[in-house]
Amino acid sequence: AQLALEVDYESRRDFETRYRVLMENSRDALVLVDAASGRITDLNKAAAAILGSSPDALVGGLLSGELSAGNKSEFLDRLIAAAANDGATSLQSATQKSRRSVAIFPTLFRAGGDRTLLCRLETENRAEGVAAELA
Amino acid sequence: AQLALEVDYESRRDFETRYRVLMENSRDALVLVDAASGRITDLNKAAAAILGSSPDALVGGLLSGELSAGNKSEFLDRLIAAAANDGATSLQSATQKSRRSVAIFPTLFRAGGDRTLLCRLETENRAEGVAAELA
Repeated sequence: AQLALEVDYESRRDFETRYRVLMENSRDALVLVDAASGRITDLNKAAAAILGSSPDALVGGLLSGELSAGNKSEFLDRLIAAAANDGATSLQSATQKSRRSVAIFPTLFRAGGDRTLLCRLETENRAEGVAAELA
Repeated sequence: AQLALEVDYESRRDFETRYRVLMENSRDALVLVDAASGRITDLNKAAAAILGSSPDALVGGLLSGELSAGNKSEFLDRLIAAAANDGATSLQSATQKSRRSVAIFPTLFRAGGDRTLLCRLETENRAEGVAAELA
């Protein structure tokens, strides 16, 4: 049983490490949001930079509070509806702190019993880059 | 103890799910390579498409076998050396199957006691997109 515990611990640590490496090394700005509460559960530095604050200051807060996003429930409903289209539909908004235009591409998934939204944030510069890439 | 086990299992599953969602939804082509053996431990669909095969067929095989990469040990040494520069240095190569030029951006990390390389693959189209973005 001790060995099984150790193996399980190693395995958990392995995926946790992989998850953190992917978040840190992603060139996309990524925010994870609890779909029930609308609160930010994790985000990377690129996303924190767009929202104009540090990751530590943003985790635990409402994503809708960082955006010109109307009320919390309505914003969550719109995110979940957009997520039904599997990352292809975006919501347009603006950041509260810097008033930058931002497009939010949400994907919904279930982890540990909770529904979570993975939101990719795209500012206009990034969208131009992608457009050039597709041309 | 039963409860602790369940919590640990949930936690492992949670990070495993998050890891898989990030891999699948990344717009980057990502390959994880065991730094000791040079074997592919995981990759996403974007990376499999560049290498010209299915993820299932590629996992467990040598990354160097999919590239015009010289011998295995030399290729691994070059990847690890490039990774020392934290994702900013790339190796130039070409895919074996389609002879497409590809740039490999490696990052080295440790998970579960093993050293792993996270390799981002960039084809020329993608590199142009990024150049346009920076312009």
